[in-house]
Amino acid sequence: MLIRAFVPAHITAFFVPLFHDDPLKAGSLGAGINLDKGTNVFVSVETGTLEKHIHIAFNGEPVKGEEAIISYSVAERLVPNDFLGEVEIWQYFDFPNGYGFGNSAGGALGTALALSYVFGGTWLKASQLAHEVEVKHRGGLGDVIAQLAGGIEVRVKAGGPGIGVVDNLFFEDYKVLVVPLGRLSTKEILDGDVVKAIEVEGRKALDSLLRDPRPERLMVLARGFAERTGLLEGELLEVAREFDRHLSNPSSMIMLGRGLFALVREKELENTKALLSDLGLPYDVAGIHEGKPRVGRWVG
Amino acid sequence: MLIRAFVPAHITAFFVPLFHDDPLKAGSLGAGINLDKGTNVFVSVETGTLEKHIHIAFNGEPVKGEEAIISYSVAERLVPNDFLGEVEIWQYFDFPNGYGFGNSAGGALGTALALSYVFGGTWLKASQLAHEVEVKHRGGLGDVIAQLAGGIEVRVKAGGPGIGVVDNLFFEDYKVLVVPLGRLSTKEILDGDVVKAIEVEGRKALDSLLRDPRPERLMVLARGFAERTGLLEGELLEVAREFDRHLSNPSSMIMLGRGLFALVREKELENTKALLSDLGLPYDVAGIHEGKPRVGRWVG
Repeated sequence: MLIRAFVPAHITAFFVPLFHDDPLKAGSLGAGINLDKGTNVFVSVETGTLEKHIHIAFNGEPVKGEEAIISYSVAERLVPNDFLGEVEIWQYFDFPNGYGFGNSAGGALGTALALSYVFGGTWLKASQLAHEVEVKHRGGLGDVIAQLAGGIEVRVKAGGPGIGVVDNLFFEDYKVLVVPLGRLSTKEILDGDVVKAIEVEGRKALDSLLRDPRPERLMVLARGFAERTGLLEGELLEVAREFDRHLSNPSSMIMLGRGLFALVREKELENTKALLSDLGLPYDVAGIHEGKPRVGRWVG
Repeated sequence: MLIRAFVPAHITAFFVPLFHDDPLKAGSLGAGINLDKGTNVFVSVETGTLEKHIHIAFNGEPVKGEEAIISYSVAERLVPNDFLGEVEIWQYFDFPNGYGFGNSAGGALGTALALSYVFGGTWLKASQLAHEVEVKHRGGLGDVIAQLAGGIEVRVKAGGPGIGVVDNLFFEDYKVLVVPLGRLSTKEILDGDVVKAIEVEGRKALDSLLRDPRPERLMVLARGFAERTGLLEGELLEVAREFDRHLSNPSSMIMLGRGLFALVREKELENTKALLSDLGLPYDVAGIHEGKPRVGRWVG
């Protein structure tokens, strides 16, 4: 049996981390955008071996337990102890790991949904497990619940699925331009001094967005958050300013990766692509994924 | 500007009503199925008149305030007081009103989403308003939050959007057969003695479903709930028993309408339709609507 789960890439625009000893109560406030590109997880289950085996591969390359600790933890919990067979978990990422696209949560959630589909469970139980494992291994705090909500999401109450509350903005006719330039360590940033500024600026941005909940306002607030926390600076800020001269909405920084994102109208797309080519920067364009992740039997 | 919102029809399989003075905390526990047929709300907004006018029509026929009190209440809250223009709200229902398909919540939620799209707001605020108005006017307790979740839903914590928690079952390859035979007054049933049996049997069914959360189990539990509460009896029960002889899963009663529903495999469909024709019963077949309602600019 072959199952496919798709989980959207999730870009955080601004956030407030909220830690808690109970992983289900840990989470984040903030806002972000779910893309129609992201993580595809294919799970193949074959019975009839003498032992239980779980194999995980990233983009076609087998990975060991410690390199895929989050997804292995999910699988260990969902594949029954008395199952005798081979479980292969193939994860394919449309964006590079560590660049701020929520790949870790995408892999965890996609694995949890696909394995629950096969071995029993529900959407909520699967998502809670993915969130818990993400939090425990410091993969992220808000990606799982944001990816479940889809669209342009606003986390108004922190926590995992069933506890946190996610709102959605109305939007139309936007594509998402992403310029992925490199990695940033979420862990290092969350352990550093900048966390205080993140908390202050994140709450201000959230309050302000809820008073005027439009995607255009989200981008203005995201940019203010990125600059005032000092996270967006140097060369990356220079590129953002170059975009300002050409795009109708401000671009902002992908939280947390060395990269930028912007909401671009269909009619702005061609000029934007020409600009990116002129600047010699890598980029991608994606649609906005509305609604839940997808999971089902794969017959492709 | 013309906006369209689609809200799935929602059939309740079993439920426990939970009343509360705060409408956002009122709701229900239970389970049900969202269909890919339901309520379409078209909202047309024209500015430039001297006064604010709100018009509502059901299936093309204009209705007065008292006949559409729920949708008028939603519109009065969402159209700004200083708006000068015509707001026309055209609601089209795929199933008859009062038959247990969640039309009232569909109209309220569709209206709230479409008007929020035009005049500003968010998904959560719009849904909370629809839920509050539904509860106040006794349209229903759990339909709005169930319709937001989509799919085969399980309300595991009662309350309106942002407070209640809804889980989803995994499923595949099912169509929903509905046999709508007449109306039932939700109000009369919730005011009657049967409410005690509903509370006891509803909780038992929910606990049992969460231990074995599969659609097939849902149908067994729904049927047990319907029979043990005494709601499914007489001629309707006879029809359900006739279905039992032909379908792989038990059918059950639409809560609350005089009607039956069943999960039918694609391959069972032809025989089922022949049976319904033989019995001379009205029926419809729908798919399961996954994910959120839809709202957007209408350009069809």
